[in-house]
Amino acid sequence: MSKDEKRHVPAATVPRLTLYLRKLRELQARGVERVSSQELAAMIDLNAAQIRKDLSYFGGFGTRGVGYEVSRLIAEITRSLGLDRDWNVIIVGAGLLGTALARYRGFAEQGFRVVGVFDSSPTVIGASFGVGRVRAVEDLEAFCVQEQVDIALVTVPAAEAQSTVDRLARAGVRAVVNFAPVKVTAPSGVTVRPVDLSSELMVLTYRLVGGEGQGPRP
Amino acid sequence: MSKDEKRHVPAATVPRLTLYLRKLRELQARGVERVSSQELAAMIDLNAAQIRKDLSYFGGFGTRGVGYEVSRLIAEITRSLGLDRDWNVIIVGAGLLGTALARYRGFAEQGFRVVGVFDSSPTVIGASFGVGRVRAVEDLEAFCVQEQVDIALVTVPAAEAQSTVDRLARAGVRAVVNFAPVKVTAPSGVTVRPVDLSSELMVLTYRLVGGEGQGPRP
Repeated sequence: MSKDEKRHVPAATVPRLTLYLRKLRELQARGVERVSSQELAAMIDLNAAQIRKDLSYFGGFGTRGVGYEVSRLIAEITRSLGLDRDWNVIIVGAGLLGTALARYRGFAEQGFRVVGVFDSSPTVIGASFGVGRVRAVEDLEAFCVQEQVDIALVTVPAAEAQSTVDRLARAGVRAVVNFAPVKVTAPSGVTVRPVDLSSELMVLTYRLVGGEGQGPRP
Repeated sequence: MSKDEKRHVPAATVPRLTLYLRKLRELQARGVERVSSQELAAMIDLNAAQIRKDLSYFGGFGTRGVGYEVSRLIAEITRSLGLDRDWNVIIVGAGLLGTALARYRGFAEQGFRVVGVFDSSPTVIGASFGVGRVRAVEDLEAFCVQEQVDIALVTVPAAEAQSTVDRLARAGVRAVVNFAPVKVTAPSGVTVRPVDLSSELMVLTYRLVGGEGQGPRP
């Protein structure tokens, strides 16, 4: 359907691509030029067949017995994830989490530029967040259009999350990460990704209760 | 190997279980009693065969044409993830992110009790974080032993992350979530889960560049 050479990686594969990318960059930093699916599997805690299947979307440059070329695989995944360009990010909700995200260094390293932080509270508007000042939420729509905002991180209270996403959608923002602990809906063409930090802890408790073949806690 | 009835769900499946659990709880809240793998697939953006495989570890109570019993599946996943009990959590690093996590309501809802927050800075030690005061990192080991800390969230600067994890491991903490933007290692028996908030954004940029069959940004 697409005219460009975009491969259609299934949505469920994408979070794993970010894991591969992280690991491949570590390998590259250590001077490793080739890696096999078995080696990746051992490092990432996935099975090798799954990795081969996931990476098959990037063409047949994994060679049996030789492995994948690290630099080429990094380039392919980077392009596929859209990380070969910068993205304009705003944060709506300048509470503790919003402020922490505004200063999170990992974003800039990946090309995610925090270009604005918004809040509705007069006591917060105008406060510095490191690379700028908190803006009034009244200016949200105009800012999003003018600055071509790509992604919004929503860290408002639960009661304000849906109306915030509605405003963002009307302003043409097509990607939202929802940190508010409530389900929100968005019109077609706008992707909302809910983030539940508890999920990170659940993966650990699963292991603590013995899911990884380790014994129970003494 | 295990004497209890624990099923051995593969590690890669566990993050998906947290997605299923979230969705199943939403369905239960709406009074839905049964759900098919196809319905779950449409809601979660995974294919139905993957869901059936993942849920097969919980026994054969998904019946063709009838679907899964929502309440029973919730109970099984909850038990498997170790969410049928409370867990003691500490946060090491009382910066913006650490403080935000200390106040994050989603943790308590899942049984993750933040019992302590630690920092090395004299200007931060003693400050209130909502449900207590920031403790000196010198007291870390004694506290972990005495309070039976299960999980530590590490939000210290990158340069301090490895030494922090070393201390936690010596203090008997077996699960660490590392928010610091650096790779750390831990002795056998201690699980470290790196969290890279950029990964959440990468899933969105993948869609923005057309990975979901949507057109490119105009």
